[in-house]
Amino acid sequence: MSGERLIYMPLGGAGEVGMNAYVYGYGPKGKERLILVDLGVTFPDMDTTPGVDLIFPDIQWLAERSSQLEAIFVTHAHEDHVGAVAHFYDQLKAPIYARAFTANIARRKMEEHGHPEKAVTTVSAWPEITEAGPFKVGFVPISHSIPESSGLVIDTPKGRLVHSGDFKLDTGPVVGEPWDEALWQSIGDAGVQALVCDSTNVFNTHEGRSESGLGAEIEKLISSAKGMVVATTFASNVARVKTLAEAGQKTGRSICLLGRAMRRMIEASVETGVLTDFPSTISPEDAREIPRENVMLIVTGSQGERRAASAQLAQGKYNGIELKEGDLFLFSSKTIPGNERGVIRIMNQFSEMGVDVVDDSDGRYHVSGHANRPDLERLHKVLRPQIIIPMHGEHRHLREHVKLCKSNGMQGVLATNGTMLDLSGNRPEIVEYVETGRTYLDGSRKIGALDGIVRDRIRMALNGHVTVNVILDEEDEPLGEPWCEIMGLTEEGASRAPLVDVLEEDLSQFLGRAKGKTLREDDVLEDGLRKVVRNSAQQEIGKKPEVTVIISRLS
Amino acid sequence: MSGERLIYMPLGGAGEVGMNAYVYGYGPKGKERLILVDLGVTFPDMDTTPGVDLIFPDIQWLAERSSQLEAIFVTHAHEDHVGAVAHFYDQLKAPIYARAFTANIARRKMEEHGHPEKAVTTVSAWPEITEAGPFKVGFVPISHSIPESSGLVIDTPKGRLVHSGDFKLDTGPVVGEPWDEALWQSIGDAGVQALVCDSTNVFNTHEGRSESGLGAEIEKLISSAKGMVVATTFASNVARVKTLAEAGQKTGRSICLLGRAMRRMIEASVETGVLTDFPSTISPEDAREIPRENVMLIVTGSQGERRAASAQLAQGKYNGIELKEGDLFLFSSKTIPGNERGVIRIMNQFSEMGVDVVDDSDGRYHVSGHANRPDLERLHKVLRPQIIIPMHGEHRHLREHVKLCKSNGMQGVLATNGTMLDLSGNRPEIVEYVETGRTYLDGSRKIGALDGIVRDRIRMALNGHVTVNVILDEEDEPLGEPWCEIMGLTEEGASRAPLVDVLEEDLSQFLGRAKGKTLREDDVLEDGLRKVVRNSAQQEIGKKPEVTVIISRLS
Repeated sequence: MSGERLIYMPLGGAGEVGMNAYVYGYGPKGKERLILVDLGVTFPDMDTTPGVDLIFPDIQWLAERSSQLEAIFVTHAHEDHVGAVAHFYDQLKAPIYARAFTANIARRKMEEHGHPEKAVTTVSAWPEITEAGPFKVGFVPISHSIPESSGLVIDTPKGRLVHSGDFKLDTGPVVGEPWDEALWQSIGDAGVQALVCDSTNVFNTHEGRSESGLGAEIEKLISSAKGMVVATTFASNVARVKTLAEAGQKTGRSICLLGRAMRRMIEASVETGVLTDFPSTISPEDAREIPRENVMLIVTGSQGERRAASAQLAQGKYNGIELKEGDLFLFSSKTIPGNERGVIRIMNQFSEMGVDVVDDSDGRYHVSGHANRPDLERLHKVLRPQIIIPMHGEHRHLREHVKLCKSNGMQGVLATNGTMLDLSGNRPEIVEYVETGRTYLDGSRKIGALDGIVRDRIRMALNGHVTVNVILDEEDEPLGEPWCEIMGLTEEGASRAPLVDVLEEDLSQFLGRAKGKTLREDDVLEDGLRKVVRNSAQQEIGKKPEVTVIISRLS
Repeated sequence: MSGERLIYMPLGGAGEVGMNAYVYGYGPKGKERLILVDLGVTFPDMDTTPGVDLIFPDIQWLAERSSQLEAIFVTHAHEDHVGAVAHFYDQLKAPIYARAFTANIARRKMEEHGHPEKAVTTVSAWPEITEAGPFKVGFVPISHSIPESSGLVIDTPKGRLVHSGDFKLDTGPVVGEPWDEALWQSIGDAGVQALVCDSTNVFNTHEGRSESGLGAEIEKLISSAKGMVVATTFASNVARVKTLAEAGQKTGRSICLLGRAMRRMIEASVETGVLTDFPSTISPEDAREIPRENVMLIVTGSQGERRAASAQLAQGKYNGIELKEGDLFLFSSKTIPGNERGVIRIMNQFSEMGVDVVDDSDGRYHVSGHANRPDLERLHKVLRPQIIIPMHGEHRHLREHVKLCKSNGMQGVLATNGTMLDLSGNRPEIVEYVETGRTYLDGSRKIGALDGIVRDRIRMALNGHVTVNVILDEEDEPLGEPWCEIMGLTEEGASRAPLVDVLEEDLSQFLGRAKGKTLREDDVLEDGLRKVVRNSAQQEIGKKPEVTVIISRLS
């Protein structure tokens, strides 16, 4: 059937690290049956998205085609892959497939949103296959920094696709299945049309290191500690939490987990059987009672998040536990770019308490969950795909990954969010550019990134805000004097008088000079008043504030 | 005279990297004659100081004692050391002393602010001495990342102090005087009561590298480039600019400097004679005319600053020059923590243009201007001071530096901003804690960090803003309906009606129920209206906005 085509289009994740969402389709042009791989979130920051709670990919294209959508496959339980499934369930209404641990996390999210948990189906690992329209999808275990991470084998009438998921090549991952080269070789043997491949660490030229190499170093560090030991890492990095806990146990310490996410992840791991021999833990109450040199806390907040356990310990108490001089705090983690300030703030707070802080600046207490450059090349060679499509990266990562493919004589193609590729032939073809973007969760509402709402907030944060109130009588004449209120502006300006007084005086003069037409037309009057405020403020305080004008007419 | 004492107190720089300001005093308690070393700024960020233009140390303590202040000595021309001299000249009115290059920069600042340039006195390097009350101060050349950086020898009736300034031990600094160990040894031979010492790189355990080692690597990189080459670094790092320019010249390229700061720094270097053999440069107009493989631009904006040349080239044109596929962009710099997002944004923009970006992740194209841990130990040993007081660092740096001193059997003391030390005896004594903090330059006004102004702006950025307007007649009865305006909030809430309509309806109901007392008292009414808005908004959009209430009474 020459009218059918095989398409690939990222809606998120190809142009940023975060909010992954990759569409595959097969069928006649425009009528393809679709599947979605992953549906994640990314996190806001004060610079560009103040007040925003979460950031989603804009999935409007897919929502408009929800009747074509067969299923959603989730590769692993990181927030940037599973975080949005419940938020868009109403719009997509597609069944969700994942392995047990990931499904457990997905179901918790569905439950929180009042959606049916049965929308999530647990599937077993390869060679089990899930059929979804024209697609046959298998979850192939691959090591990463969370249990049961999987690459997907997606068999289609036009050949086999492999979606790597987030991965590293770890033969000693501590928790979960090790990298199984023979298995992946056999998957490649059947012939791979396209590999859609993680690009996160493409700039790192070293071979990746194994999780299993960390335990001894961490144990040595803890042995040297005189007081309480606290370690932080991503709660979802269950292998690391286990490595830390075992190191603590071996050095004679009782383990206490702090932070909601930490407890939830360990709970999910035990429920789903991925974690069977975790050291026994004690409660925060017990941790307070025993000598501090016998305690190790493992806590949330490795990225300096303000409400997490690390930040709260740095500010004082958390669950009644307080750090003090001679304690040791270990960041068994890497700081994600953009989070440096928060992490450094915590380090300095601990320093003020006399707590010794150890981070991973020398690479001894953390390994990445993503494949470095030589490991990417190894996967390329094992699978020998016709086409390689880099994903999971900023533009610079994707571009570098394409260059890497080419330097090895392989065919790489750069497809950022919204780029639709036809993968039916020997060469990938760009067939469409779809408008994509970001959707913000703002409080309880979804808003568009380009709605101007966040832009207005940023302007208020930069410029402050002035409210102007004018009342006009039935004859369109000012009734009393104009009135100002300021927020986020200094109270006194260059003329040493209150800023509000100066603004009101200037507004009053403007109204006194204003002609009938100005006073009769709200738009004109509003414009005039706004200009007066901005110009006066500029003179007085050197800033042009945002202005809300309220004109009340008694007519 | 046993009633006299020698004091030291940082007002800025001891607890952060930035806004340096160190006070020294000698005399009877409370009547000490004072000098100030450095008076710098630090830079705002969106997280904590949106809309702020510059951050100064709070110098109120010193301003109240300006009659005791003999002089200000500026060690070097970095903004965090010289940036605030003009801003506080009116309050301090003290003569400013610096070496020629630093004085040149300081005078430009004084001129911009309309202050007398003659307030700045140029002094020669050690052994020249400037007397300031009981102090004899000499500028001893020491290598750093800007020309004519100096440590200060401060001789007092109670002994010799050494203020290291920012420094590294570079025997091949490319521009300026190399590290002269014999000279510093001789300064130490006279006996040093206290060393106040740079702490920035105390966590770096490697020996520092020389500026002179970079040229060959940079030349190799440029040789490999096919298109235009652009390099960025701090404009004030004149040695680096020279290293870059010479590497470009050797590979047959014409050099063009872009960015106001870049041209100003080179100008100041030439005017003051610190730079004598800089390669000849071409104008942007000429750079546009010659083949791009023969051009090298050296530009501002290594930290991703939005208005600098780098950011503008990343977005399109700058001075008519446009980068394109195959060009090379080199960050000959380190990204300061907190600036990662801005730098990464630029890298991705260049990636989209097909420009190859090289940064210093492998340490080949940049060396730090600060002494690493082994170099700090070397200065300690050369000077053999009675007391070491770490400065120029966050709390964690200062604490680590003190630990380093102790581990080497030396006496280190941790003194953060506002800690007054008496250095008269063999052991430093904390004699007072002075309240310190930060002052913001906001537009044209100085505001206090704790004034609440910036806090209100942050709140508006996080929560959005609602203006409520209510008019009451002579009888204190509502005249017409209440009226709302929103800014930075979504227009539609959970009930699918415009948010403004819902708020106005709820306000109207509240007013309908309100008793006479509520309506008569502005405070009570305002509180009530604010609560209605916050609760309704919480229900509708899941956010509690900031609210300005305007009550107009016709009475």
